[in-house]
Amino acid sequence: MGLIVQKFGGTSVADAERIKSAASKIVKSHLDGNRVIVVVSARGKTTDELVNMAYAISDNPASRELDMLLSTGEQITISLMAMAIHSLGYPAISLTGSQVGIRTDSTHTKARIVSISTEKIDVELNNGNIVIVAGFQGIDVESNITTLGRGGSDTTAVALAAKMKADFCEIYTDVDGIYTADPRLVPDAKKLKQITYDEILELASLGAQVMQPRSIEFAKKYDVPIHVRSSFNNSSGTLICKEAPEMEDIVVSGATISKNDAKITIRGIPDKPGQAANIFHEIAAKNINVDMIIQNIGAMGLADVTFTVPKEDLKVAMLTAEEIVKKIEAKEVVADKKIAKLSIVGIGMRIHSGIAEKMFSSLANEKINIQMISTSEIKVSCIIDENMAEKALLAIHKTFGLAN
Amino acid sequence: MGLIVQKFGGTSVADAERIKSAASKIVKSHLDGNRVIVVVSARGKTTDELVNMAYAISDNPASRELDMLLSTGEQITISLMAMAIHSLGYPAISLTGSQVGIRTDSTHTKARIVSISTEKIDVELNNGNIVIVAGFQGIDVESNITTLGRGGSDTTAVALAAKMKADFCEIYTDVDGIYTADPRLVPDAKKLKQITYDEILELASLGAQVMQPRSIEFAKKYDVPIHVRSSFNNSSGTLICKEAPEMEDIVVSGATISKNDAKITIRGIPDKPGQAANIFHEIAAKNINVDMIIQNIGAMGLADVTFTVPKEDLKVAMLTAEEIVKKIEAKEVVADKKIAKLSIVGIGMRIHSGIAEKMFSSLANEKINIQMISTSEIKVSCIIDENMAEKALLAIHKTFGLAN
Repeated sequence: MGLIVQKFGGTSVADAERIKSAASKIVKSHLDGNRVIVVVSARGKTTDELVNMAYAISDNPASRELDMLLSTGEQITISLMAMAIHSLGYPAISLTGSQVGIRTDSTHTKARIVSISTEKIDVELNNGNIVIVAGFQGIDVESNITTLGRGGSDTTAVALAAKMKADFCEIYTDVDGIYTADPRLVPDAKKLKQITYDEILELASLGAQVMQPRSIEFAKKYDVPIHVRSSFNNSSGTLICKEAPEMEDIVVSGATISKNDAKITIRGIPDKPGQAANIFHEIAAKNINVDMIIQNIGAMGLADVTFTVPKEDLKVAMLTAEEIVKKIEAKEVVADKKIAKLSIVGIGMRIHSGIAEKMFSSLANEKINIQMISTSEIKVSCIIDENMAEKALLAIHKTFGLAN
Repeated sequence: MGLIVQKFGGTSVADAERIKSAASKIVKSHLDGNRVIVVVSARGKTTDELVNMAYAISDNPASRELDMLLSTGEQITISLMAMAIHSLGYPAISLTGSQVGIRTDSTHTKARIVSISTEKIDVELNNGNIVIVAGFQGIDVESNITTLGRGGSDTTAVALAAKMKADFCEIYTDVDGIYTADPRLVPDAKKLKQITYDEILELASLGAQVMQPRSIEFAKKYDVPIHVRSSFNNSSGTLICKEAPEMEDIVVSGATISKNDAKITIRGIPDKPGQAANIFHEIAAKNINVDMIIQNIGAMGLADVTFTVPKEDLKVAMLTAEEIVKKIEAKEVVADKKIAKLSIVGIGMRIHSGIAEKMFSSLANEKINIQMISTSEIKVSCIIDENMAEKALLAIHKTFGLAN
């Protein structure tokens, strides 16, 4: 007899029909002889509605009270899900984060799980119940209700699976797995049968459609196999797991483009030691994450430094950069928002060579100019013109034989 | 420095504007130097909406899960109320029934409070906070969420006031006090300055507009003065309290009509000992509350027994009565739904005589026939034709000088 954690997201429990449909999937796992723990999110737009209620009252609601408010969304879903399972004739019990004993720190609206008590869940599983747990929520040491932030229900599901030593954690969502590329951009993208935690973390922009990086990091740390699958059909999805020997044959697992970054260039920097440290110390002090950095030494002992930042931080980053320009007596600073980051990811890159070169050639063949390059052990990323992004993705997808 | 419990019902917190308005009243009490505990209900139609969600899933939702679901209604209100007080610049904290430590029995959907822990509330009051408590809810010994049934938030407020030894309990609602009669039926009905617990309990149909009898019984038991007042204006309302000497001068405090009962008559009962016991034993076995009973001995040793039951129980009561008729060999049973119960209530009746006679004369003057009579120490009730009810109420109201 196995132990499975099944998580249903907001779109999978948006209305009575979908809750009943999810209940059928849950009951099927129960009838297959498994002990089943279910984690649910708030229904459809419930969280947005609750947030709107708060902002109708206050421009700046206290985070403790926001958590008190938002946690009702999942509490509604757990009770309805238990009723749906009951009406199919099977035993189920709903539990809030507090009732389970999901302890977090006190960082309201983005709390981190500190510990999970298994006692109550064990009792209810031993009673023969399907146990329905409210995702996204916990309590701190003073019993204040906390929430886990974006993707919090995924975190709850993975944490429960880790703590309960579940055989695997099924994430039911509105896509049916992880693809080699975004199928809306690459029509012949292929669903992956399996992918490693590291690859999915690098494929952030693909992974973000399905699960938040934080819960994947958690799954990796505790070695919880995650099965991402659709709540609307029965096709098998994608398994996210640790590296297996046969996976090294797949050199590139997926390709992705992201338009979330902007590029800043500081020109004419007097070339002396400590200039880069000066620049990035100031940027970091504003809590801005710099992704790629390149530095060129130009004519007359003057250097140019180019780096990328999230588009949402561009305004603050530019103000900071302008101050830096004055301070270090550089010539000027310019920004470019019209860029895209094209990435290929694959665990097999570690043992196969020439992958980056193959990517650059493919882009050259398409007459696409590469502005910046960064690599990791299992990833190559290039910054290119935003207008070329989709064309580049199609070319790369084909070059690495990712299509069906 | 006083301690006040203030309760705001569903209509008083129905939308953002009303919550803000209630928050102003709360802050005013805080600024007057009081320690303030606030109890709130679910907003407007929230409970109905939640119940509809449940019945969209299941025809027969489990009561434990209904409680899990319904308790979110009050949890939403407490968080919004805390935000509204914060945005006025004052400290407040919301607490669920579980967080306060409101322990109940395990009778889901109509649980009874077993104990209340004051520790958390004391801490938060000592921190200078206005404490906002979710009404209607508690937890049982296994930490299951329970709800207290109809009027549950009133019960929470009164129980907290009793336990915390509050100076008084303010019930904010959509009427501005208790009247000598229903102002919709008697245009010159007068708002009462004060009334005793016993009177308000007898004036059930008036009291029901404002508070459930159960919470008034609780207030009486623990001697909690209740101030019923409007959440929409600042006029002083009606104080419900224990008897004071000056209140005995008021012979009749109020008059009321109720159309909730039906009358059943069993005719031609062989007149022998134990027949009444036979009849009412069977009726009681169906959990039907009989209100008035009269018995006449007619010709040939046959008796008639007439009694009233709640209209909603009439069908079951008639089926039972028909079985009884066969069993005791009575002649027949007939029902009459077109009746009304006219009542006058007043603590002063105890020491003033001739009150019932004055009521009967007044009805006789209006040519209204009295079908049944029942009296208690502080009440006289008559069953009359339903069509005469409003006319009778106006006459009685005038006879006893209740008008403005």
